[in-house]
Parts: sequence; structure tokens; C-alpha cells
Amino acid sequence: MSPFLEFREEAVESLPVKTLPTKINGIKAIASLQLDEADKHDRVMKVFRAFIADLCQQFSGGHPGSAMGMAAIGVALYKYVMKFSPRNGNYFNRDRFVLSNGHACLWQYLFMHLVGVKSMTLEQLKNYHSDKYDSICPGHPEIENEGVEVTTGPLGQGVANAVGLAMATKHLAATYNRPGFELVNNMTWCMIGDACLQEGVGLEAVSLAGHWKLNNLCIIYDNNSITCDGTADVANTEDMNAKMRATGFNVVDIFDGDSNVTGIAQALISARPSDKPTFINIRTVIGFGSAVAGNAASHGAALGTGDVANIKKVFGMNPEEHFTIPSDVYDFFREVATRGESYEHGWQDTVDKYTEAHPELAAEFKLRVEGKMPQDWTQFLPSKESLPTNSTASRKSAGIVLNKLSENMKNFLVGTADLTPSCNVAFKGQVDFQSPDLKTGCGLTGDYSGRYIHYGIREHAMCSISNGLVAFNRGTFLPITSTFFMFYIYAAPAVRMGALQGLQQIHIATHDSIGTGEDGPTHQPIALPALYRAMPNILYIRPCDSEETVGAFTAAIKATETPSIISLSRQGLTQYPQFSSRDGVQKGAYVFVEEADFDVTLIGVGSEMGFAMQTKEKLAEEYGIKARVVSFPCQRLFQQQSKDYRESVLKHKSGKPVVVIEAYAANGWERYADASISMRRFGKSLPGAKAYEYFGFQPPLMAAKISSLVQETKQNGIESLRGDFRDLNGSLGIGFEH
Amino acid sequence: MSPFLEFREEAVESLPVKTLPTKINGIKAIASLQLDEADKHDRVMKVFRAFIADLCQQFSGGHPGSAMGMAAIGVALYKYVMKFSPRNGNYFNRDRFVLSNGHACLWQYLFMHLVGVKSMTLEQLKNYHSDKYDSICPGHPEIENEGVEVTTGPLGQGVANAVGLAMATKHLAATYNRPGFELVNNMTWCMIGDACLQEGVGLEAVSLAGHWKLNNLCIIYDNNSITCDGTADVANTEDMNAKMRATGFNVVDIFDGDSNVTGIAQALISARPSDKPTFINIRTVIGFGSAVAGNAASHGAALGTGDVANIKKVFGMNPEEHFTIPSDVYDFFREVATRGESYEHGWQDTVDKYTEAHPELAAEFKLRVEGKMPQDWTQFLPSKESLPTNSTASRKSAGIVLNKLSENMKNFLVGTADLTPSCNVAFKGQVDFQSPDLKTGCGLTGDYSGRYIHYGIREHAMCSISNGLVAFNRGTFLPITSTFFMFYIYAAPAVRMGALQGLQQIHIATHDSIGTGEDGPTHQPIALPALYRAMPNILYIRPCDSEETVGAFTAAIKATETPSIISLSRQGLTQYPQFSSRDGVQKGAYVFVEEADFDVTLIGVGSEMGFAMQTKEKLAEEYGIKARVVSFPCQRLFQQQSKDYRESVLKHKSGKPVVVIEAYAANGWERYADASISMRRFGKSLPGAKAYEYFGFQPPLMAAKISSLVQETKQNGIESLRGDFRDLNGSLGIGFEH
Repeated sequence: MSPFLEFREEAVESLPVKTLPTKINGIKAIASLQLDEADKHDRVMKVFRAFIADLCQQFSGGHPGSAMGMAAIGVALYKYVMKFSPRNGNYFNRDRFVLSNGHACLWQYLFMHLVGVKSMTLEQLKNYHSDKYDSICPGHPEIENEGVEVTTGPLGQGVANAVGLAMATKHLAATYNRPGFELVNNMTWCMIGDACLQEGVGLEAVSLAGHWKLNNLCIIYDNNSITCDGTADVANTEDMNAKMRATGFNVVDIFDGDSNVTGIAQALISARPSDKPTFINIRTVIGFGSAVAGNAASHGAALGTGDVANIKKVFGMNPEEHFTIPSDVYDFFREVATRGESYEHGWQDTVDKYTEAHPELAAEFKLRVEGKMPQDWTQFLPSKESLPTNSTASRKSAGIVLNKLSENMKNFLVGTADLTPSCNVAFKGQVDFQSPDLKTGCGLTGDYSGRYIHYGIREHAMCSISNGLVAFNRGTFLPITSTFFMFYIYAAPAVRMGALQGLQQIHIATHDSIGTGEDGPTHQPIALPALYRAMPNILYIRPCDSEETVGAFTAAIKATETPSIISLSRQGLTQYPQFSSRDGVQKGAYVFVEEADFDVTLIGVGSEMGFAMQTKEKLAEEYGIKARVVSFPCQRLFQQQSKDYRESVLKHKSGKPVVVIEAYAANGWERYADASISMRRFGKSLPGAKAYEYFGFQPPLMAAKISSLVQETKQNGIESLRGDFRDLNGSLGIGFEH
Repeated sequence: MSPFLEFREEAVESLPVKTLPTKINGIKAIASLQLDEADKHDRVMKVFRAFIADLCQQFSGGHPGSAMGMAAIGVALYKYVMKFSPRNGNYFNRDRFVLSNGHACLWQYLFMHLVGVKSMTLEQLKNYHSDKYDSICPGHPEIENEGVEVTTGPLGQGVANAVGLAMATKHLAATYNRPGFELVNNMTWCMIGDACLQEGVGLEAVSLAGHWKLNNLCIIYDNNSITCDGTADVANTEDMNAKMRATGFNVVDIFDGDSNVTGIAQALISARPSDKPTFINIRTVIGFGSAVAGNAASHGAALGTGDVANIKKVFGMNPEEHFTIPSDVYDFFREVATRGESYEHGWQDTVDKYTEAHPELAAEFKLRVEGKMPQDWTQFLPSKESLPTNSTASRKSAGIVLNKLSENMKNFLVGTADLTPSCNVAFKGQVDFQSPDLKTGCGLTGDYSGRYIHYGIREHAMCSISNGLVAFNRGTFLPITSTFFMFYIYAAPAVRMGALQGLQQIHIATHDSIGTGEDGPTHQPIALPALYRAMPNILYIRPCDSEETVGAFTAAIKATETPSIISLSRQGLTQYPQFSSRDGVQKGAYVFVEEADFDVTLIGVGSEMGFAMQTKEKLAEEYGIKARVVSFPCQRLFQQQSKDYRESVLKHKSGKPVVVIEAYAANGWERYADASISMRRFGKSLPGAKAYEYFGFQPPLMAAKISSLVQETKQNGIESLRGDFRDLNGSLGIGFEH
């Protein structure tokens, strides 16, 4: 079956299987595997498949096909292979399981029920696709529910999450395991359908898994050859096995995946001691047992009462009975939970002995297990006095803040999408996360204890893998990702999944706004901030100088259930130590420069704060207009402040206009401002300073426009601006307008 | 050199090469290739490389390394292989060239200059990285400039664009070529660096190119093994050749790519008559000639005056001379332009003879060449009377409108990311775009004349390929893409590039908002509309019923330099034939139901219009409050209307509050409204109707909240709402709030 099934006793130890050893080419191997209670497989799978059919029929919807097709895989995995504890979804060293084809969630829910996950009752199973608010059986697996490692659904994400989960194990093992003490040695199993390796994010992720030789990762391919449009060969005819081998995986074929539980179990068991990540290509029949078996019709709709009845008849079951799970089927799975408890006890035993042998390491390890920071991070923040006072790019300011944290905080896993020279995230004494076997052309080496991650030019996988790192165990890691802000559009689906799951991490987004310059419109973000400001549960923070950058990191580290994007300039920025405040950043916005009897409030933001300050000067000099300035690094944090605080910052009740100056689309600023100097078209390839100039970010021009607005509102009253938000530089840009 | 170099005279005909034929295994082959003026290669490449070094040094920035490394590839391609006309960038049957590693643009600019592209003067070359507004040498190639096929820069996009360009050729050839008349037979050459096949979008695209057997596509891999972080093996150690073979490509190795122009030319020439797409893996040295050759230091920065001088010394050139191109180097390339003119003449001749032989087809072909619609599309729009009046999902309405257009309009290329059963874009009599050799398990077949495209589960590549289809020749194709709206977040980088380049296409985005239901929060878009509403040059249109759906398509088809997203419901929607208007949609928003002496204006949007209408009723019944209703399908179109029109729709001057009802984040609506019923968290897995209910989209609740707002503003004056936009259902949602 498996071409690489090396015999190791520990691979089968504790599992309900027996092995007959042999030698192949002089190497010890498994001649055959005998599964306990193998005579029950057929019956268990029939009951399983009929139950799935019933569930979908109940609500006339859902995804029965894959769940029915994957029955044998589930029996192999849940009963024979996976080392976990059904009664305790938080057992630290449990094997992680990811259902990347999340639409097949019923499969996971039903196996969770069968192995004894307490919350997964029969009643809850019936909540699938129901209108119950408290259902734990949503249409795709959700991380909030017991026994679910990550929320999946958007295809391909689960593969990359699984790579992150496997990295987490490798890193913890390399950091904390000691001879005789295997504190962390779990496997990561990732189930995929036909889609997950069509999606780019999945392909990016497997390239990295192969490169890193993550031999604790096993991808289980439910190769039923069916997608919504027909057979998968309608859009895909590549040699998947050859492709995965070229990517660095061991590949195993299973051709009778509907019934051969033993073969599947043998392949899965052999993945654990392998030298590379494993790809098991299992041929199954979608909707096995149904009249539309092997057909796309069984994928995303209930099968119909007639078909459901027929399935049961063919299976020798009573078509009149629904949701039937006979006691012998429960019996079959009963030992899984008790075995799980013994894994827990064994692990606790190991931890106890480790604590005696390595007390300091053990103390740190326990903090990591509890999801607590291994050290007080605030001590590594630079004081205001120590920060640069001359013009400094905020990407450099971020380097000053982050590098010290990264150097000292063992929970920081710092990565970059091939922009080490640009993003300033490399830190002193860093070790690269790499396979220790790696020999590179440039001499770079590393090992799994490394905390600096080269993701390659794979922004999407970077952020999706980062989600997996956090999901391994909340608080154990604080991953950092980095690339140009514009390329967080590649990663947007993964960044969103991080926000949706409340997975804390920090995205270092350099080269923000048109200030990025010569690289041109393709590299200059205009609309992207609107996405991240509208997205729930994420902080998009644009600090204006080094002090605010300290504040941005402080906010991001404190947000333990929320990812953050820290948005940074490529170009040098004027520092405002007399005005800027790390504490102010925590409130999202604050008064930067107050002014008695002011005429207008200017909102300065991040890399464009300098324009607000220069325009304030121009307004005073040229027009005798008094402008106060508000610094506004984060809309979400500001929105969380009290109404009184918000009014004290923006002073709308004064009846004076508020103008925001930011080189992005104004969308969303209308909540806070009456007018904007902003961008309504894509950028232009020019040196940064010239790009700003080209689009009208010139203090004299801005002052003239704002002065007119101030005069107008004095004349017509501030209420005249209602429903008439002004894009003040709409006609200033010289480029064409779409 | 090439394992598949079949001898075909037409492959080398017209090229400045001589061949010595032979037979290999009885098959005619090329024994060797002799390039004209091969003795000049060394000198030409030296001059080329020194010039690149000078250009970057001039502005102390830019990307010299790849451009210098790729010199031999450029000589092979521009001088010997590519069939194009330097004097006429619009020659229809030209070979298309895509520089997917767009940062190496100087390479392209300098070769364009050398072969005689008129606008590309010496002065213009020196504008690279300058502050000249009228430079045609931006930091990445831009489609607006003569001789550039697509704007590149965001890595991986160019590969997918090239797949689209190659498809365009295949499709036109299958549709219009007749025996003896090769109207369209151009090649697409795509240059890539190490990044483009690390990026998921590139990987998705090559899978499709292999599947479709696009043998007119050749990917030229500048394998210099260097990325920003060091040697490429820091993040990638896969067997790229094996992977590309598994993906369906012929693979050719070139190991001496810095100097072997002949070998490169031979491989390129052999790609033209191949049976599959070709991948040429060319080893080069980045920054060839520089002191930092082979090092990441030569990638993204000028080399320094010392190094530039040294390069020239080593090359036997005068280090004191800058920007030197001796006349013999110009002479070397001189025949390219005249040969290009002969290609044009030959093609015109073919078209003339074809016109005699096939007058009707020729007439249609000429319209396509001119970028004109082959027929009057308006005749295929359904009349208002013919539209459904019972509850209808707008995805079905879109099917009604689009399918008729697709059936009749030969320029419509309709695709889906494996959601044929859900997106309703399949049409009567459709032929699938497939290799005619394809035999699928489900019996589906097709050929290259097909206009229905199965992209597989590859949303990103779908939209990036779509950009390539349009870029082939503006107006020749109107591509349609389709998937769930949520998964246009996967495609966002490509959708953005379409908007940036003004490439008209229509994205059919079904299952919008939380109404999509059971699939849950992963499938329910909340923030994504904020991205597309903020993005320049794209229309995001949400029609509320069938009539507005006709209007949405009308707007999208009329927007010839702008892509559109038509955002559609999964669930049935009440039809409002008495109120809805296709013409109204053209203005972005319009009065749906007027009301004299109104108290409040409700904005209804797309799939949630029903809530606005029901709330209007409730307000009247329960509170005696008169609400007028505005339908607001498209913010961008509304923004383009006159101020008077906008005031007539929203009536801000009335002093009555405006409330928008939409199940998305409110960001951006603050420009038009004072309050919203909207979403501030991710969605929930519930049946669609229940999901709306859960988040407070219940007419009685909404009416109560709006009634309070009306009372409040009557009491405190409308001006009290300034700076205090109200999220009316902020506390209604039962889920947790982040």
C-alpha cells in the first residue's frame, strides 16, 4: 500500500491495531495491519451514510455527498489513527484535524458525536441547517465549537491553516522537547476535496510544507472527482500525484477508498513517522449508496425522500426509521474516548517528569500552554525619549519597536513574504525557521526552533498559515506577517478569516499610500483601507510617527482576540514628539494640536500627518484661519470610545467644519468629517513626494480649498454641508478620472 | 536542446535564422539553428547591460538586476523570435508579450527602444524613476503605453493575463480561421521571475493553461535563483520542472542563459509548433556583469557609480560615457521593424482574400477587430412586461437577462468558478471552451470556439485571465466571470487590476449579503462591498429586482472602460414592477416611492429592498410616519450625477433624516445617510430569513428605531446628527460584538 511504510513500534503503539512485521530490502516494515473489530466496518459505514442522508433530507439542503463518500476515511481516522481526547478538545498534544472541505462538516459532526464529544448530541446534529440560534452544527465548522480546530469553508484556507498547525508543533517540539521528553509531537491531519488544491492559497501552502519538510503534516485527499460543474476533469487534468511529489510530498494511492478502512488506516499510520509531509490520494464515490452516487447532484442538495429510503433499503436498514444509531455502532467507537483520556494522562505524566528535570523550561512551557506571554512585553517598548526625532519612515519606527520585542519574546513568530530588506522585521540573533537539512545557495540555514519565517512570495498563504499558528492554541504564539500594504489584498481572504475567528496576530504593512512612489499605481493602495476599516474585528492602525508606532504595537498586542494591521510609510516622516502620544493611539483618535477659537478641525492620518500640520501653518499664514489638528490612527478604536470623548476630539457641536487629509479613498471618513483631501482614482508612478504633489497634496493648494470651505460654511451655516460631503481635491489631480 | 523540436518550415519562416534540418527517429527535426549576425550578440548585450546600469544609477534606484540578467533572452525574443511590428503596437495578429516580473520593465523599455518603437525615445528611457508627469517609463509596465499589452507589477498576475491572451487567440482562431486563412495565429510569450509561480494566482493559471492545452503560450522563466531575501531556495526547493510537466507543460532547460542567445532562440522557436504550452527554464545571473552579480543586492537598488564604471571597464567600454548606444547596435535591430511591417502587410493580404472568400464572417471579424459589438445587444434585453412578477432571486433574474445576451452575442465569453448550478450563467446552445482532445468523466466536451468557460475553483485566476481576454484587443471580448460574491475577495487583486487598466468585463456575484444563509459567516460578505465601492473605476451594482437587473446589465455593458460587479441574491426577492426602473439604475439611485410631506427617507438597496418597503409600511401603520423610499443600486453612478439630481433624490435640504437599510458594513453610506440598519460583525449560519432576523432586520424593530430617530430629530433638529451617524441596530444583533 504505502511505499514508505517503515515499521516503528511507536507509530502503532496505543492504537487498536495489530501489526505483522517483515523486512523489505533489509528494512523493517509492516507486512500487514490488522484492525480491531474490522468486521464492524461495513455496518458502521452504512449507519453513518444513512444518518447523513437523513440529516440533509430533514432540512432539504446541505452537502450529503462528500460526507457519505468519506465514511471509510472517517472510520480509519477517528477510530484507529488520530490521537486525541474526545472528552477534552483542549488536550494540548492532541492531533489536530482540519476539514478544509468545510462543506462536508456533517461528516466531522457525526464522527464527533460517535466518538463521544459531549456537546455534540443527537439533538445538536439535527440542528444542522436549522433556525436554532444556539446550534453548534453550522454549515461549515466553526472554531468556537468544541473539537473544531479552525473555521473552514472558503476553500484552500484549511490547507494553509494545517501547515501553520504543523509548524506550531515543529517549533514547540524543537524549542521545548528534550531527550526522553516528547512534550509536543502531535500530527496534523488535513482533509481536502477537489477544490483545495485548485485554489492558489492551497498551492502556495503545500509548496511551503514541502520546503519545510513538515513530516508531521498529512493531507488526505478525498478524490471523488466531482465538483459542482461535473467531473473534476472539466477544469483539471493535471497529474496531481506527480505535482505533489515535485512539491516535496510523499504520495500514497488508495483506490478503494469507499470500503478499505484497513488500507486507509495503514496509509495514515505510515504518515506519522515519514520523512516528508504525506499526501494520501484516496479515490471515493461521492454520495456513496445514493441513486446519484458519483454525480455532482449529490454534492450540494438533499437527496430526496425516495432516494434516502432506497439507500436504507439497499443497506438492509428500515426505511421508515430515521436518525438511527444502534448501540453496537456506539460500542464500536466507545474505546476512543477512554484511549483519549489515557493520552492525556500520559502527557501529563511527561510534563510532570519534565518539570522535575527542566524546571525553568517547564515553567515557560506552561505559560505557553496557558496562552500567556512568557515575559512582560511592556519592558521592551522604547521610551519616548529614545525615539528618533529626525525624519524617519514609519516602517523604520516599526522596526525599532518590533525588533526588540521579537528578540526577547519567545512567542513572536516573525515572517515576511520575501521583503526582509524592505519591511524591517528581521531581528538581532534571529534563527530562521527551516528544516535543519536545508542548504541554501546564499548560505542561510535554520532549524525548527527558528522564529523568523521566509514565506516566499506567497502573501495569501503567509496570512492563512499565520491563522493556523494562532489556532494551534490561543496565546501560545503571536505571529507577525509582513509585506507591502498593497499586497495584503492578495492575503485579504486569510486576513478576514483571522478576524472572523478572533485570531490575534500583527500584519506589518509597509509602503502604504501613494507615498510608496515610483513603483506606481499597481503598488499604491487607494481602496484597500476601506476594506480593512469596514471589516469586523480587525484594527487597521496608521501611526504618524515613532511614538504613535509604539502606540500601534501596544494596541495590537493588547487586542488578544483581534488581529491588527499596522500601516507604515516607505518614506521619511516628520516626527512630532511634542504632540504625538502612544496613549492617544489606544483611543483611535486624539487631539494633536488644540487651538482656541478655531475655525476648522483637520484630521491628520498616519503617513500623511505632515500635510495636515503644514496645511495648518499655511491656513494661519495665508488666510488667518485657525486650524486644530486631530490625529486619527484607527477608526475602530475610536468607535469604541464614549460619545463624550468622541465629541471632545472632533468637536462637531462647535459647528466648525472637519476636513480629513489622507491619500486614500474617502469612503468611511464621511462619518467623522465634512470634507476630504483624498484619492478618487488610482495612483501614478512618480517619486513619492511628486506623487503627492500630482494629486493635490500641496499645503498651499489644500489651504486654499479649506479656506474656501471655511468661508462658505461661515456664510451658509455648517448645516449646508449635510448630504454634501466635499472631495476638495476632486479636480486637482492632473491624471484622468474614472 | 529541446526534446520536442519538430521541424516545421513555418516555424522559422520569415525569421532571421537559418536551419539545418535532420531526422530524429525518423521525424524531421532541426539539427541546428544559425542566427543571422550571431557575432554581434556579445557586443549588443554589453551595451544593453551597461545602459541598464546607467539608467538605475541616474535616479539611484530601480531594478537593474533582472533586466541585466535577461539580456540574452531579450535578444533572442525581440530580434529573432517574436512576430510583431514595432511601428504599430496595434497590429492585430502580433505576438503578445507579457512581462509578469514587471519590476524588470527597463529590460522591456530598452528593447522597445532598440527595435524602434517610436514613442520609446532615449529621452523617455531616461524618465524611468524621474518626476516627469508624462513619462512612458513608469516603475512597472502600464497598458496605456505603446507596445505594452498589460499592466504588470503585482506578481503572478501576468501569468494569468497571458493565459487569457492565449485563450483569446485560440478562440478567435477556432471561430474565424478557415482552411488557407490563418487570420489569427499569434503566440503569447510570458516572461516570469522566481515569484510568479510562487504566487497562487500564477499556479492556478498554469493549471488551466495545461488543462486547456494552450500550445500557443510560452512561459519563459528567468531562473536567476535570487529573490529579495536571498537565494530563492530560502523559501522554495520544489522541483519546478517536474511540477510544470505534471501541470501539462512541455519543459525545456537552458543552462547558459546569460550568453546562449542561439539556444534560447531555438527553444523559443520550438515552442510555437508544440503540442502543449511550453515552459522554458532559463538559468541566468542576476545583475550579470556587476560586482554584486548573482546577489540579491542587485535586485532592487542602483549598483553605485563605482560598480557601474567597473561594469563598463570589464565590458571594454568607456566608463566616462553614459547612455551610450553605438550605431552598430541600432543596426543589429534595424530589420525588426521592417520585418514587422511585412507581417502587417501579409496579414492585411490574408484578411483581404478572406473577405472575398468569406464575406459575412469577414464583416463580423472586422467588427471584432475594431472592438465593436458584432450585433445590437439592446434587442436581447427583456421587456419589463416579460419579467417575472412573483418572488424571484436576483441571481435568477440575472440569468434571464444574461443568458439571452450570451446566446446571441458572440463577444460574450461566459465563465464560472465551478458554480454553474448556482450562478445561472449557463446558456442555451452553449459550447464549452475546451481542448477538442478532452474526454471527461461526465461526458462534457468542447472546443476552442466555445464561449462557456469552466475555470474550476480558481476565482483569482478566473478574474486575472479575464483581464487578459479583454487586453487582447479592447472590445473584442466582453468576458463574464461568476462565483459567490464573498469569493470575489479571492479575486480582489485581479478585479482591481481590471479596474486599474479600464478593462471592461462583468463579474456576476451571487449569494450576496447574509441572505445567503446556512453556509454561514464564512460565506456572508460584510466588508467586501466597502472595498468595491471605494475602488476607482469599477461599478458595484446591487439591483433589487428583475427590472433593476436589466438596468444593471445595461449600465455594465455601456461602461466600455470600466469593469462591473453585479451583486445578486441567493434568495427570492419581491418584485416591484410598479416602482423599479432600469433607467433609474443608470443614475445610481432614484426615487422609488415618493411621499408628500414625508418624515424620513429610507434607502433600500438590492437584496434588502424588501426590508425598506416593509419598514415603510410599518412606519405608517404603527407610528403614522411617512417614509419615502429611494432605491440605491450603485454609489459610483450616483456620484457622477449632477448635484441637483442628487439633491432631488435624497432631499437633504428637507431637513428630514435619511436611513439606509443594508446588511453590510455601513462604511461609505455616511455620505448619503444619517443612520443605518447595517452589520457591524460577521454573519451567522442560519437560514437566510432567520439570519436577517437575528441581526435585527425585522420591520417592526426597524420601524421602532427609525421612529425614535424621527422624533429625536424633530425635537433636536437634524443638525444634531452631524458627526453622530447612528448604527441603529448596533445593539439588536444577538451575536457577540467585536
